[in-house]
Amino acid sequence: MKKNDITILGAGLIGSLMAIYLKRQGLDVSIYDKRPDRRKIPYSEAGRSINMALSHRGWKSLEQVGLKDKVLPFAIPMYGRRVHDEHGGTAFVPYGKADQAIYSISRGNFNQLLVEEAERLGAEIHFEHKCLDVNFRTDEVIFDTPEGEKKLTPSVIIGADGAYSALRMSMQKQIRFNYRQEYISHGYKELTIPATPLGEFAMDPNALHIWPRGKFMLIALPNPDKSFTCTLFLPFQGTKVCFEKIQDEKDLETVFRAYFDDAYQVMPDLKTEFFKNPTAALVNIECYPWVQGNALLLGDASHAMVPFYGQGMNCGFEDCSILNGLIEKLGTNAWDLVFEKFQKKRKPDTDAICQLAMENFIEMRDSVADPKFLLRKKIEAKLHELYPKEWIPLYTMVTFTDMGYAEAYAQGKLQEAIMNKVMASPLITENWDKLDYEDIINQMETAKAV
Amino acid sequence: MKKNDITILGAGLIGSLMAIYLKRQGLDVSIYDKRPDRRKIPYSEAGRSINMALSHRGWKSLEQVGLKDKVLPFAIPMYGRRVHDEHGGTAFVPYGKADQAIYSISRGNFNQLLVEEAERLGAEIHFEHKCLDVNFRTDEVIFDTPEGEKKLTPSVIIGADGAYSALRMSMQKQIRFNYRQEYISHGYKELTIPATPLGEFAMDPNALHIWPRGKFMLIALPNPDKSFTCTLFLPFQGTKVCFEKIQDEKDLETVFRAYFDDAYQVMPDLKTEFFKNPTAALVNIECYPWVQGNALLLGDASHAMVPFYGQGMNCGFEDCSILNGLIEKLGTNAWDLVFEKFQKKRKPDTDAICQLAMENFIEMRDSVADPKFLLRKKIEAKLHELYPKEWIPLYTMVTFTDMGYAEAYAQGKLQEAIMNKVMASPLITENWDKLDYEDIINQMETAKAV
Repeated sequence: MKKNDITILGAGLIGSLMAIYLKRQGLDVSIYDKRPDRRKIPYSEAGRSINMALSHRGWKSLEQVGLKDKVLPFAIPMYGRRVHDEHGGTAFVPYGKADQAIYSISRGNFNQLLVEEAERLGAEIHFEHKCLDVNFRTDEVIFDTPEGEKKLTPSVIIGADGAYSALRMSMQKQIRFNYRQEYISHGYKELTIPATPLGEFAMDPNALHIWPRGKFMLIALPNPDKSFTCTLFLPFQGTKVCFEKIQDEKDLETVFRAYFDDAYQVMPDLKTEFFKNPTAALVNIECYPWVQGNALLLGDASHAMVPFYGQGMNCGFEDCSILNGLIEKLGTNAWDLVFEKFQKKRKPDTDAICQLAMENFIEMRDSVADPKFLLRKKIEAKLHELYPKEWIPLYTMVTFTDMGYAEAYAQGKLQEAIMNKVMASPLITENWDKLDYEDIINQMETAKAV
Repeated sequence: MKKNDITILGAGLIGSLMAIYLKRQGLDVSIYDKRPDRRKIPYSEAGRSINMALSHRGWKSLEQVGLKDKVLPFAIPMYGRRVHDEHGGTAFVPYGKADQAIYSISRGNFNQLLVEEAERLGAEIHFEHKCLDVNFRTDEVIFDTPEGEKKLTPSVIIGADGAYSALRMSMQKQIRFNYRQEYISHGYKELTIPATPLGEFAMDPNALHIWPRGKFMLIALPNPDKSFTCTLFLPFQGTKVCFEKIQDEKDLETVFRAYFDDAYQVMPDLKTEFFKNPTAALVNIECYPWVQGNALLLGDASHAMVPFYGQGMNCGFEDCSILNGLIEKLGTNAWDLVFEKFQKKRKPDTDAICQLAMENFIEMRDSVADPKFLLRKKIEAKLHELYPKEWIPLYTMVTFTDMGYAEAYAQGKLQEAIMNKVMASPLITENWDKLDYEDIINQMETAKAV
């Protein structure tokens, strides 16, 4: 047995980046993916989430592997949310300081760039290899391939095979594997705002556009071709506006005219796309342990989250970075130890971000439309400006730092409790600028000390 | 396609009882089980939970199918818990009124009795048929059999195939299936207290014996052959007394002498059994929906609980009774409707009993050793005696009535809050008999009205 013959399941974003990290350490890496090589057989990604928001944690990993400059041209900075009301009015809410942005990037080309970099560094990539099972008694990985069934016995298996991970499915049959998959009541559908007839962006490209409508919302992220990819989030059923109640073009028009009229005006393909594109579900997946024998789960395979904090990919990239660091530190003679340390360290953080992603859905679809929420953001921004180390807004901790998610979560909850008190003051709208900011910081320091 | 060709997966207690119900309605039923026919190939059940506590809900179902009298001879009534302290002292805590008991019964013979009754009524039973997959597009059920792979397309599938259900595994691959499996930190091992050399029970046979030791416990249930089946519940690892730290006979003896000395004196086979029998894990499983296409999950397949409320089998039998009632009422032309009503009605109740089972572990292993707990039981018994309808102890609601588990749970929580106040009174031990019982009932009625 070759001592460090590493098999990665999944040539998606996480699998490819992990391969790049490992190849840069000079290790022997093969990737297996069930999909065909898109350079040979292009396939549509319609219905999969095709736009993502790359932020600090993601960039940090790309920088570590020397890819930041290669990726930048594909990414469009969004400095805040542009919130659209029912009457076409908008308000801009910055994500952080003036120069802080999250970056819109499309899955397809980005994934391709990572796959090619992994290949360039010498990773073998085998497409059309669908993992059927991992046998933990024999350490065999069984693939279905166009040439029939294939069995391999790699020394190490890393499952970066996504929310519907085959490796995790095999682990689930093992004793004492804790597992949870929870679908939320909402689904989503991808739609498009194309470039204008003059070839321009139809709206401000440097923002994430949101149409918050309480129980549902529409969002739009810019693409380099000057289109926007929109995602409509609605309950599947049971509410006034839901997927089940949009049966024909008339229903669709009624909903869009009533709630998203400004977007509707710039969506010429809405009716075709809506009924052609699938309605996809949203799942939260948590499990533990992530390790079984010589196999480890990574990224969505171990912690698939709902998309409302824009952290799924960033968190997966951070997984790769942390795992890489442990391998560098502990060497490749002690995979057990590396994997054990990885899961122990990382699990509280991924639990926290899964939870935050769930909670942020309410903020996006509802709170951002509330003037009090905007005021709250303003006060927190001012606190952060005055006390840059003592008070960091939760969104900033998650998005623009690499503080552990669990620590950010705990700190965020403390700050939330204090802000609830601040906002309860009856004249807050008038007097927010005259608050005793030092006292707020003192309250927080006291709460932390308890 | 035959319209009412029903396939039941699993010839365990739940599958067999469901077949009996359906045959009594004159329906066409086949059962498929992965195990061999134990009449032809006997197999050991060592390590599976082999003793169960049959209580009101279970008996009610058996009565409905006319089996109560046939089962009674196999069952030994236990009127309460006999709590053993470290020094060999014991205390008896009744489960309910003087004539209320739960019944110890062994899985093997009981299961056999149900299988034979199902056969007698005309159910076809196919052993050595391991369900590999259920394909919801084609409605095919695929079995591995000694004669090779077999495919069937029954009109209805009922998955009574237990905590590791193959039907549920197939459902889990479908979209929007919520699922959760959670192992607790404790495992269990089955042991035996045999009949004495004179052929008698070594202890009082009409009680469930408990050795509560805080973080762990031993229990013993009587068998008709005058032995007791004991179950030792310990943490797998990480505590002073845990499975990981019992590596040899010396370790074992040390633990048993220190904590279970009176039991140790009547366990001649302890050392052999302990190292021969497997250490089994304990899992809580919840999922939803229970229905996919023409298939329904039943019993442990849809809600496997930890064994600490003695309700797993009783709850599964009640599932059968409720499903049977719905089929009788709505007929066999509307399986969709029957299944939908079943899962909607039943899910809150099974969630409640899963939760109660988890909570009761602490009561069994810890609280029952506390004099305050015994006093609390006494006060509640008196309340129940004085106000038989207004105050029913939680254990009684769950075990000796067929009130919905969810309702029992809610009512139990109200009562618990009131009892916490009652027990907080400093002189409660001295004055419990002089409490204002009417006032307690009034408090409860007020709490309920809120």
